[in-house]
Amino acid sequence: MHAEKVSPLAPDKFAELPQIEGVRLNAAEAGIKYTGRKDLAVLCFDEGTALAGVFTQSKCPSAPVDLCRRNLSGGSARLLVINSGNANAFTGVKGEQSVSETASAGANIIGCTPSEIFAASTGVIGEPLDASKITGRLPQMIAEARADGWRPVAEAMMTTDTFPKLATVSTELDGITVTINGIAKGAGMIAPDMATMLAFVVTDVPIEANVLQSLLNETAAGSFNSITVDTDTSTSDTLLAFATGTAGTRGVKSLADVSDPRIGSVREALFSVLKDLALQVVSDGEGASKLIEVTVTGADSSVSAKRIALSVANSPLVKTAVAGEDANWGRVVMAIGKAGEPADRDKLSIWFGDNRLAHLGERDPDYDEDIASAYMQQDKIVIRADVGVGDGQATVWGCDLTKEYVAINGDYRS
Amino acid sequence: MHAEKVSPLAPDKFAELPQIEGVRLNAAEAGIKYTGRKDLAVLCFDEGTALAGVFTQSKCPSAPVDLCRRNLSGGSARLLVINSGNANAFTGVKGEQSVSETASAGANIIGCTPSEIFAASTGVIGEPLDASKITGRLPQMIAEARADGWRPVAEAMMTTDTFPKLATVSTELDGITVTINGIAKGAGMIAPDMATMLAFVVTDVPIEANVLQSLLNETAAGSFNSITVDTDTSTSDTLLAFATGTAGTRGVKSLADVSDPRIGSVREALFSVLKDLALQVVSDGEGASKLIEVTVTGADSSVSAKRIALSVANSPLVKTAVAGEDANWGRVVMAIGKAGEPADRDKLSIWFGDNRLAHLGERDPDYDEDIASAYMQQDKIVIRADVGVGDGQATVWGCDLTKEYVAINGDYRS
Repeated sequence: MHAEKVSPLAPDKFAELPQIEGVRLNAAEAGIKYTGRKDLAVLCFDEGTALAGVFTQSKCPSAPVDLCRRNLSGGSARLLVINSGNANAFTGVKGEQSVSETASAGANIIGCTPSEIFAASTGVIGEPLDASKITGRLPQMIAEARADGWRPVAEAMMTTDTFPKLATVSTELDGITVTINGIAKGAGMIAPDMATMLAFVVTDVPIEANVLQSLLNETAAGSFNSITVDTDTSTSDTLLAFATGTAGTRGVKSLADVSDPRIGSVREALFSVLKDLALQVVSDGEGASKLIEVTVTGADSSVSAKRIALSVANSPLVKTAVAGEDANWGRVVMAIGKAGEPADRDKLSIWFGDNRLAHLGERDPDYDEDIASAYMQQDKIVIRADVGVGDGQATVWGCDLTKEYVAINGDYRS
Repeated sequence: MHAEKVSPLAPDKFAELPQIEGVRLNAAEAGIKYTGRKDLAVLCFDEGTALAGVFTQSKCPSAPVDLCRRNLSGGSARLLVINSGNANAFTGVKGEQSVSETASAGANIIGCTPSEIFAASTGVIGEPLDASKITGRLPQMIAEARADGWRPVAEAMMTTDTFPKLATVSTELDGITVTINGIAKGAGMIAPDMATMLAFVVTDVPIEANVLQSLLNETAAGSFNSITVDTDTSTSDTLLAFATGTAGTRGVKSLADVSDPRIGSVREALFSVLKDLALQVVSDGEGASKLIEVTVTGADSSVSAKRIALSVANSPLVKTAVAGEDANWGRVVMAIGKAGEPADRDKLSIWFGDNRLAHLGERDPDYDEDIASAYMQQDKIVIRADVGVGDGQATVWGCDLTKEYVAINGDYRS
């Protein structure tokens, strides 16, 4: 099920993630669907690990998403179990039983309550997930988990991903170095045998669960909630942040309040890791050959700007034009027009890179097709539009729509 | 710019449209963009022709759409001028001048007011449209217009369309035969060098403009406003209905009120023509190899049902699965889930044709992959979902997403 060719937008080299005290990781072959590759992973946390989460908006969430939502209120995590190959979504009572069995087994091994166990699954929708394939592996995987096991876990999560996604940032808090590591997967936004977006970050910063949740909500908005591959929302999208708090033993005081003046640097570091991972997800968008950044300015509000930007980034006609290296700004006009948000057609301006192609509701008088076409050969296409009605602005990221996207999603059974 | 291959979903033969008293048509080569083909058309109406219109919801409408909206309030039409090759959209003051010149020229030739002239354009966005290319042709085209000229007009409107779209229905009113003819174009929903949906219907039924408008709103909702090719909304979508009223001379009394008991048969005939044309548009969706019909039942309301149905019909992953003849009902679960409308995951059932694939929130116990896969080889795929929360239902139509769609929209400049 793996794509054979690595995305042309993959990073030149993968981030080397440092160890974070309080978390140990492991990955194994459980034979859930794939053969000859790791498809099961665990993150084991020391006592006192706080967590926060952001989940899919789907009305048909998977059983693991239901479990995470339930257990999130406890604010405490000891184990995360991740599998690829089966999403355990739309599996009814069987799906609930499967995650319950996994949680019970994990709690027994670790000696904690099942409410401290979290799960995430990606893969086929609608096929029952046999929990014994997971629970049978857990004792050894947990016993042998290691602090340096990030890369194999990132790889075990992959479905149609063509490369593992890793990011890390260190910053200073109370004069002491703290770290945030993150891993993610996701290629199309979702689907059977396919994608879903999963992302997990772990930090040693001591921080209360509610403060972490607040930071995660803020930083997810401008990162994972500002990317799109194909408008299709997974039943299983899960972003979890874990704080082992182990930097506390090195003298970092706990962040117990969102108004703590030290919170800025943690927010910045967290956003940096999330954005890095989010852009890696888009860069591995199914069939993607180009990354598209869309910034909308002059909108009625930032919410309105984001809706317009997503309308552009999601437009099949904009995406195919980028794939064809065609500076087709008329399709951007169309996509702005269809967003249904306030925009003044006769004040509208559009740039591709630094080249202004349209101005004040008409083709730019200095429009030069050769310059515009030359720009379209870049790997990253930056589209900016000013819609002329206010001060709202937003940036989102997407990718182009290629024949390979259709092949990946249409040909794979035939 | 014409596709070389006719859509596999094209009708076996084109409808032969009868003459309708009070309208004469013509088409000519104006060299607006294409060479060696007709790209300009006129419909000339006798005095007393009422009209109604439904237009794009785009916030960046074309100059002809602005003109039609302005003139619609007069309720009276003498001339419709249609061109392909240039959308006259995002052309600022020049675009307004271009349609004004066309309207003035038409009014002078016919001897009416410019407010009785209507225009529709499809083609490139952002390029000024030289009105003289149109006005220079009008005198002869109007003088030589004929009652039997439907097919050449339908052809002159084409852009990436692979076949002309024609439909006709006759019914009885006051014991007398009346007729509704219609023509349409549209392939992708929009774009430079590309599509846009234009549709024009003409009837001899005597009917007041406001009654016609009411009927058109009702019937457009279940036809042209229930189809989707790629979610992309044109700057130029235009549906106009003209009533010459000439059946009045044969004894049909005028329809002056929506509560007239005779209105039912006209509504039915109008809906029949619009739906026929709408399905032809979808069947010629860019790159389409299969027509997709999506019916949602058990929704909170008919509005909610339509939103869910469109979420399914627009999902790239559903569309690519259909292209790949993959009975991938898990993607339908995803698309229902992402619609954001009320749905009970655990009561959800999904059918492909007569085959129930999912039931009460799980894969159907009788699921048979061979039967489901065999069904997917049909030209028309009927997807039905019951979302288990109410009585709302709706049906929409779309098409699959193929590599040819990407090629048509991404390759054409390269």
